[in-house]
Amino acid sequence: MNYEPPFAPRTKNMGANMIREILKVVSQPGMTSLAGGIPAPESFPLDIIKELTDIVLQKYSWRALQYDPTEGFTPLREALVAYLEKKGIKTAAAEICISSGSQGVLDAIGKIFISKGDTIAVEAPTYLGAISAFNPYEPRYVCMEMDEDGLIPDELEKVLNNTKVKFVYLVPTFQNPTGRTIPLERRRKIVALVEKYNAILIEDDPYSALRYRGEPIPTFKSMSPDHVVYTTTLSKVFAPGLRIGIYVAPEPIRRWLVTAKQGIDLHSSTFNQALACEYISGGYLDRQLPKIINLYKPKQEAMLSALEKYFPAEYSWSKPEGGMFIWAEGPKGADLVKLYWKCIERKTAFVPGKYFYPHPNQGLETMRLNYTMSDEGNIEGAIKTISEVIASGF
Amino acid sequence: MNYEPPFAPRTKNMGANMIREILKVVSQPGMTSLAGGIPAPESFPLDIIKELTDIVLQKYSWRALQYDPTEGFTPLREALVAYLEKKGIKTAAAEICISSGSQGVLDAIGKIFISKGDTIAVEAPTYLGAISAFNPYEPRYVCMEMDEDGLIPDELEKVLNNTKVKFVYLVPTFQNPTGRTIPLERRRKIVALVEKYNAILIEDDPYSALRYRGEPIPTFKSMSPDHVVYTTTLSKVFAPGLRIGIYVAPEPIRRWLVTAKQGIDLHSSTFNQALACEYISGGYLDRQLPKIINLYKPKQEAMLSALEKYFPAEYSWSKPEGGMFIWAEGPKGADLVKLYWKCIERKTAFVPGKYFYPHPNQGLETMRLNYTMSDEGNIEGAIKTISEVIASGF
Repeated sequence: MNYEPPFAPRTKNMGANMIREILKVVSQPGMTSLAGGIPAPESFPLDIIKELTDIVLQKYSWRALQYDPTEGFTPLREALVAYLEKKGIKTAAAEICISSGSQGVLDAIGKIFISKGDTIAVEAPTYLGAISAFNPYEPRYVCMEMDEDGLIPDELEKVLNNTKVKFVYLVPTFQNPTGRTIPLERRRKIVALVEKYNAILIEDDPYSALRYRGEPIPTFKSMSPDHVVYTTTLSKVFAPGLRIGIYVAPEPIRRWLVTAKQGIDLHSSTFNQALACEYISGGYLDRQLPKIINLYKPKQEAMLSALEKYFPAEYSWSKPEGGMFIWAEGPKGADLVKLYWKCIERKTAFVPGKYFYPHPNQGLETMRLNYTMSDEGNIEGAIKTISEVIASGF
Repeated sequence: MNYEPPFAPRTKNMGANMIREILKVVSQPGMTSLAGGIPAPESFPLDIIKELTDIVLQKYSWRALQYDPTEGFTPLREALVAYLEKKGIKTAAAEICISSGSQGVLDAIGKIFISKGDTIAVEAPTYLGAISAFNPYEPRYVCMEMDEDGLIPDELEKVLNNTKVKFVYLVPTFQNPTGRTIPLERRRKIVALVEKYNAILIEDDPYSALRYRGEPIPTFKSMSPDHVVYTTTLSKVFAPGLRIGIYVAPEPIRRWLVTAKQGIDLHSSTFNQALACEYISGGYLDRQLPKIINLYKPKQEAMLSALEKYFPAEYSWSKPEGGMFIWAEGPKGADLVKLYWKCIERKTAFVPGKYFYPHPNQGLETMRLNYTMSDEGNIEGAIKTISEVIASGF
């Protein structure tokens, strides 16, 4: 190529996702990886996909293969009314829309809200896919501190009081990367602040269905429907490869998200939406979910007991009641990127936590541990190996 | 809602697609519509979808349901090497990427190239979905005149000589909306200009497989690989509901498109890509395509002879060798939006051509006629009705 393509300046803001780079390193054969962030293949309802396909073709015939409205496949939107009601979200089919994974709606949210230099408020650390979605629109990030109960309300008030933010982005339940969940009392305080300042809260909720212990906590959406854009996904309870995200947003935000999506991909796969519709309305999801929970619960318990058994006293970690991740923190000054490389030499991987912070030079002493992709034995072995490397002073 | 959401100024540039609004009007019962732009359901290989599903589940198992690389499903990219070679595009699997419909890559192209106020060059009229994809990035459009052989090279030279354009966007074969195809000799001139000015050409090619007569014409991509981003789709030869687009772009454009897509939707549906892979590599597409052509060819012939038989002498129309559309033009000053409303009263629909022009007040005397969605009898009846309304002076 003998010329320089005239890329838009926003590309400077669009670095490759570091986590994806790490996942390439750790996919080497022989590696025991706690680095991933994806569902176990054993959680997929492989045995019923064929059955669902037959139902879809018989029930919807060519309609499942044709272009379809941007808002989503009507029967799926109808089936989701009851599904969301179980999460305490009372809404109508017309208010439920489908996106291409929840990634799809995060991009559309960026598109309709963010101009260059606008401020958005996020937890630190936060979900990296959201940063990848927002970055091309060139926002500034205000990072809000968390403790073991997630976002600290006083931190939010400081931000809302000082800064005009376009929106607040939270993963309030079993957060990626920390596994933390904001308790009800704190949710009430956050809602009061959001309403006081007329802010918009993006509630990204991919994990709440994966609860192994304890009682469900009301969603922000159920507490403040007019101020919350709620998004969830079937990636963790059906199959991520189908790319089905779900969002519920107040008018007129919903209208703009649909207009944006029309330019982005016209609509999400009709066929996959029809499969999802039958999976939910036929009661398959209700039968599959306990299996998924029974798959992950012992893995999580294995990791928690291995941490208890092997990890040094100066390390602490989250003890989530669900989700896919545990977050560990070493003593101040510990360089867990260095630890990561030493562990890779011993064929054991995790993700250094610093990559989940929008700003550099934060979280050097943190790490994210995933338990969905390994069996209990490997999980214990990996935690033991990491502990040995820590003990060696790395 | 008691507050005004702080939408980004770019939303002002994101009107609803007028064609979609028209399609809502014409979906009333009893309407004979030449307004649509979508494939006939009879063109879908419904009978083999079940077979393809079985193959996919047996061959790829859980891999067809798992997260997958942003670039696309590896076996599909491999299968597309031979598919694209038949279109004269010699490339490697690593250079072929998958998008969520071709709409998906048009949005990503907008994202990596266009900043507010940047100029892009398009044919007038042009494909409206591209305008919907580009508009949120706030470009200025330079519209280039066409004749019955598509884009006029002198028009392109004038633009490239006077203006710094980010890219030139063309649908060179059986264009939507005009059905026009740029002949080889003219393609050579256009390529020479693109190379002389080191411009980037986006070649959007959804229709070239639907050829009913005549010989295929080389793609721009085959003539100037370094200057062309080529995009096509399986929507017209498999099923649009699966949302499978394909693009081939020079490095580093490809790299940025992949990075952009990672933020937009992570990747396109693995399951649907696996279905597409088996559809192509198993020889199903080669058997289905002649059926699709046999379905559309008589419809197109019915429309061409009805136009010949009924349309008044002061109207002219394109005579494409393939695709899905015919473009008709009335005498200067004719108001075909008015004609449209009169025809709707008689339960007959088309799309007024003016909506395909990026600038208002152009193409008032033009109309787009689609023949894929009606049978031959209805096509003749609709053209007869439109002719009667024209004859009445509307």
